[in-house]
Amino acid sequence: MGTKPLDGKKISEDRKEYYGKLRGHSCAPLWENLAHLITPEPVITAIPYLWDYSEIREDLLHSAKVISAEEAERRVLMLENPTLEGKARITESMYAGLQLIMPGEVARAHRHSPAALRFIVEGSGGYTAVNGEKTYMEPGDFIITPSMAWHDHGNDGSDPVIWMDGLDLPLVNHIGAMFMDHYPDEQFPEGQPQGDSSVRYGNNMRPIGEGPDGLDSPIFSYPYSKSRETLEELSKTTEWDPYHGLKLEYIDPTSGGPAMSTISTFLQLLPKGFKTEKYQTTENTTYSVIEGKGRIIVNMGDSTKTIEWEDRDIFVVPCWYPHQLEADENATIFSFSDKVVQTKLGLYREHRGNK
Amino acid sequence: MGTKPLDGKKISEDRKEYYGKLRGHSCAPLWENLAHLITPEPVITAIPYLWDYSEIREDLLHSAKVISAEEAERRVLMLENPTLEGKARITESMYAGLQLIMPGEVARAHRHSPAALRFIVEGSGGYTAVNGEKTYMEPGDFIITPSMAWHDHGNDGSDPVIWMDGLDLPLVNHIGAMFMDHYPDEQFPEGQPQGDSSVRYGNNMRPIGEGPDGLDSPIFSYPYSKSRETLEELSKTTEWDPYHGLKLEYIDPTSGGPAMSTISTFLQLLPKGFKTEKYQTTENTTYSVIEGKGRIIVNMGDSTKTIEWEDRDIFVVPCWYPHQLEADENATIFSFSDKVVQTKLGLYREHRGNK
Amino acid sequence: MGTKPLDGKKISEDRKEYYGKLRGHSCAPLWENLAHLITPEPVITAIPYLWDYSEIREDLLHSAKVISAEEAERRVLMLENPTLEGKARITESMYAGLQLIMPGEVARAHRHSPAALRFIVEGSGGYTAVNGEKTYMEPGDFIITPSMAWHDHGNDGSDPVIWMDGLDLPLVNHIGAMFMDHYPDEQFPEGQPQGDSSVRYGNNMRPIGEGPDGLDSPIFSYPYSKSRETLEELSKTTEWDPYHGLKLEYIDPTSGGPAMSTISTFLQLLPKGFKTEKYQTTENTTYSVIEGKGRIIVNMGDSTKTIEWEDRDIFVVPCWYPHQLEADENATIFSFSDKVVQTKLGLYREHRGNK
Amino acid sequence: MGTKPLDGKKISEDRKEYYGKLRGHSCAPLWENLAHLITPEPVITAIPYLWDYSEIREDLLHSAKVISAEEAERRVLMLENPTLEGKARITESMYAGLQLIMPGEVARAHRHSPAALRFIVEGSGGYTAVNGEKTYMEPGDFIITPSMAWHDHGNDGSDPVIWMDGLDLPLVNHIGAMFMDHYPDEQFPEGQPQGDSSVRYGNNMRPIGEGPDGLDSPIFSYPYSKSRETLEELSKTTEWDPYHGLKLEYIDPTSGGPAMSTISTFLQLLPKGFKTEKYQTTENTTYSVIEGKGRIIVNMGDSTKTIEWEDRDIFVVPCWYPHQLEADENATIFSFSDKVVQTKLGLYREHRGNK
Repeated sequence: MGTKPLDGKKISEDRKEYYGKLRGHSCAPLWENLAHLITPEPVITAIPYLWDYSEIREDLLHSAKVISAEEAERRVLMLENPTLEGKARITESMYAGLQLIMPGEVARAHRHSPAALRFIVEGSGGYTAVNGEKTYMEPGDFIITPSMAWHDHGNDGSDPVIWMDGLDLPLVNHIGAMFMDHYPDEQFPEGQPQGDSSVRYGNNMRPIGEGPDGLDSPIFSYPYSKSRETLEELSKTTEWDPYHGLKLEYIDPTSGGPAMSTISTFLQLLPKGFKTEKYQTTENTTYSVIEGKGRIIVNMGDSTKTIEWEDRDIFVVPCWYPHQLEADENATIFSFSDKVVQTKLGLYREHRGNK
Repeated sequence: MGTKPLDGKKISEDRKEYYGKLRGHSCAPLWENLAHLITPEPVITAIPYLWDYSEIREDLLHSAKVISAEEAERRVLMLENPTLEGKARITESMYAGLQLIMPGEVARAHRHSPAALRFIVEGSGGYTAVNGEKTYMEPGDFIITPSMAWHDHGNDGSDPVIWMDGLDLPLVNHIGAMFMDHYPDEQFPEGQPQGDSSVRYGNNMRPIGEGPDGLDSPIFSYPYSKSRETLEELSKTTEWDPYHGLKLEYIDPTSGGPAMSTISTFLQLLPKGFKTEKYQTTENTTYSVIEGKGRIIVNMGDSTKTIEWEDRDIFVVPCWYPHQLEADENATIFSFSDKVVQTKLGLYREHRGNK
Repeated sequence: MGTKPLDGKKISEDRKEYYGKLRGHSCAPLWENLAHLITPEPVITAIPYLWDYSEIREDLLHSAKVISAEEAERRVLMLENPTLEGKARITESMYAGLQLIMPGEVARAHRHSPAALRFIVEGSGGYTAVNGEKTYMEPGDFIITPSMAWHDHGNDGSDPVIWMDGLDLPLVNHIGAMFMDHYPDEQFPEGQPQGDSSVRYGNNMRPIGEGPDGLDSPIFSYPYSKSRETLEELSKTTEWDPYHGLKLEYIDPTSGGPAMSTISTFLQLLPKGFKTEKYQTTENTTYSVIEGKGRIIVNMGDSTKTIEWEDRDIFVVPCWYPHQLEADENATIFSFSDKVVQTKLGLYREHRGNK
Repeated sequence: MGTKPLDGKKISEDRKEYYGKLRGHSCAPLWENLAHLITPEPVITAIPYLWDYSEIREDLLHSAKVISAEEAERRVLMLENPTLEGKARITESMYAGLQLIMPGEVARAHRHSPAALRFIVEGSGGYTAVNGEKTYMEPGDFIITPSMAWHDHGNDGSDPVIWMDGLDLPLVNHIGAMFMDHYPDEQFPEGQPQGDSSVRYGNNMRPIGEGPDGLDSPIFSYPYSKSRETLEELSKTTEWDPYHGLKLEYIDPTSGGPAMSTISTFLQLLPKGFKTEKYQTTENTTYSVIEGKGRIIVNMGDSTKTIEWEDRDIFVVPCWYPHQLEADENATIFSFSDKVVQTKLGLYREHRGNK
């Protein structure tokens, strides 16, 4: 974005000299950069892209041979948008990875200012403990480890366990407020029994005098068994939204707001044969397919890009790309985005249909 | 941040091959990057730095010879942190520049999703119009042009007018939700008379039934005459805060929150001879000195950096640098930071004193 | 509270004449009334009192012989605090009654500005429909009919159905904002199927773009089967609160606040043998015992009043009476109060233990 | 509201006996009372009424001869709605009185849970101290003494000082949460200097780290000089509201909400010759005329009541009476109501124009 020529015009020698002087004063002329810095509509580097689960799964299982869980601390393949290689970003504002825990392994306790979500893709017997409350995880379950909450993971089962990590890491890096602590022991001391937080806050009641004041949901586990059933039930009584099918947001019942303070999370049902209308949003969205198959058609400006997806694939649609989702079979899809951040900052915008 | 060797260890051939394969799948091993991505404490590229006003002023006045207001659209020198050359950032998360309007010039009407503040440094007769409501500006005045509000500027006086622009541009770019429109005419049609918004919302009353629902203050002009007097009055009845002297935040009286939804803004008084205690904050702060002189002492890890400032200088303290402010004369300093963003996202942290 | 003598002192003839003149001008001397109007601590007319369910039940069943459902519109016995006879108040600020619906009867659709709760005491097959969404009710279920929501009731079962009504009627009467409409037909048209609201908003998810903006919970049915289980589960992992045992508040998951905007509602578990510590609260509370038996010991100033309760009894503790609850068997008790109103208005206060 | 005959029908002997039995059980049949308890529209006891200031002023000055300030504690004439004699209410939900302090007198320090406003009608040199911060008061000034804030009054001038008191006393009495303390000394120790709170919070800035968490405005003095000027300025740029002329609400700049948590307060300008359109509101409003004269025309059902007012008169319009205000001269009127309470509880409603 440096001092590029404006509209390809040649810069005079006088200006060159002047710009050099400015550089020496840690200044630069806005007028040579304005058109790049502030654009009429979003100009996004990240592209729509899909990670084929079978491919990545093989890579991930191979990692268990390349590096021990202990050495890796977290055995994760980062999913990097092809245009953002080396930047640890799946979209401009979000990080995603696939994490593997082999039977008997643990990922030791730590905490950090970036918030993380885990979306379970494969395997049983894996668990996450948040501040000592353990929760066993099944495919489709959505787990939160909020900013600065101690967490560790393990696999008490007999098969590999794989989940998608989603973090607001690029945002925290952008701001700079990065903090991380290792817990002195491998695991955080055992705390409340499994499910305690869900019972305490998730049943539309709560103990008097107990005010979870955090910005994140005290319920940190949203099991698929319940969320899938919710989707199923509502599909019987709700008209399909032309832009989303049936799309639910995970919420924090102690505030009514999004479950996480920096990441919006959704579960979506598209019935067989459904095709959504053209839709644009400033959200940067990462999708993880749970069931079904279909495609996403993205308008790339002059052309159209069609990406075929099936269960367990991960794909992204960055900010402002017009797109349509189409399902060949009943499909349920988990997704996460930066919508909550954009909304808090007054930046969120969407556009329905053609211009 | 790519696949650098972990702790300087040599990567085996097997791994190299594996990593190459991963790169082909738009993946990368987290374990080679974790230590760089998530750090125990903030690792900040930007450095504490000062722009000497007399130097920049000369550069800025020279720009009037190099480029016309019309050609430039905005005649602005961006202040780039020396470590962030070509990135249009004064700190990781913030943009700042110095804007010049010569007598008789105008900067034509446009609007954009990044929010902007103007802090007047020099000259009389300059004005900003926000959605058609004009406000004339004097040194020390703080003006808001909120996200997507139409605004234009001009100089009806006989001397150059210079102000500092502060924008959340890097944040908006990070997220992607960038929008900008030019107004078809040079200036937005004349609207409410000068001062109307301030009278309507700033006198601790407001018309019934009128709910400014925006996230930003409907008062877009905070004149120095009033804010300086507020500081003066309070200094008589308020104990000096050991970390801040007397520091006021500009607020939106329709919500009680910060005046801007993405930028926190402050005015600070340090009495002659006052030296603040050591202080760390995750804020990325840009200071603009109005009156007085003194220095800022910043702990750079092994060493200490002392930066002398005087009136009209601009200096920055990025996230988490321990620092102390010292005034040789009574000093008033305007500053802006990303505190409001960090607070909304649950990332704000400060530390008082030594560790 | 008129112009009573102050402290029993005789009022002089001059003053009498003066006071008479004032009365003619619709004035009165505050100084003759101040001690009665503003007291150091609450001076409450209502007394702690219990309604024996077996007694009231008989009365209520008799009402079916005295008046038809149609003629009565609602076949309800109001529970009036003995000190507030003729005032339709169980405490100063709350209304309660017991409503009976015989098999095959309906209570026709209407709506009103007072908000109502239903707490089911006896019988199966009864239902409430709120804006056309029907919910069948079992003993222990808690149902909300919010302000101005259309509602009707019926009994499709073969036995009498009895529930407690709780309304903010005295508050609405005090303020004056009373509105009521009869629906033109007996029943409101059938709407969403049973349970739809609970699935839509009560499972810690919600459809995107759907913002229930009401002040009351869109979930209007809180079944005992779920709330009792919640209490049971939490009792295993939670220390008994010395003042409340284990006391849960029903919440609105779309805001995190109380389920109703004018009535606070609770479900409480006291284990066998538990006796709470002495406690005072400005709440006016009505209790409905679901299971168990025990007593409440109330400090009446010079003396102590002990009220024995057992399942299905209803009893009240008005504002600021020091009291203790004691359970001879595991007891679950529903209660409602004006705490939410007091909290919103800044008037809520509690005191733990002796003075 | 007791067991009156329903619609004038004679009650049978059987029912009489049954009702007598119910009364013995502290019960009553709702069906005999429903029509009185829940009405289609508000049925209000209080009536529109005016207190002629010259008349009440004479009465008030006479009180200084009848009772000493010390004996009276507060020398106040309560204004009682003619239909609510002996109830200390100017409308169903609000208390108002006129308070006199003679030169040299003080009204000693106390605090209480009811919140109070003072609206100065006559005289200079009077002051109120709130938690030790003194404010001198002039006619037209609006002063808040929030719930449980220590306050005392005095008159350092040479003429009588008279103000209107407005309290939420009936509401607090209704709920029961009444608390009052006398300060051990006559006056609360001197605290911050006059105007400190206004400077600290009222200038659209505030000291960082200082969060007034109260529900009431920390600014407790709203001088008429400033509010009148605000009205004047806005009148030049604002279209007259057909129902209100130009009506401003006093706000708490730390929240953007009403200045008081239980009483809404307004200042209104009606230009000479202006007549508002017919308007109904559930608010119970008390008006105090500052300048001008005119009339209020109230629809009393079958008839119309016209009340002529001039400066310093006080008049009331209870809930839901259709009314119109008309000014013969430019008029400024202060008013207070229970709108904020009704809004918080979801009960507020208004109707514009004829039905």
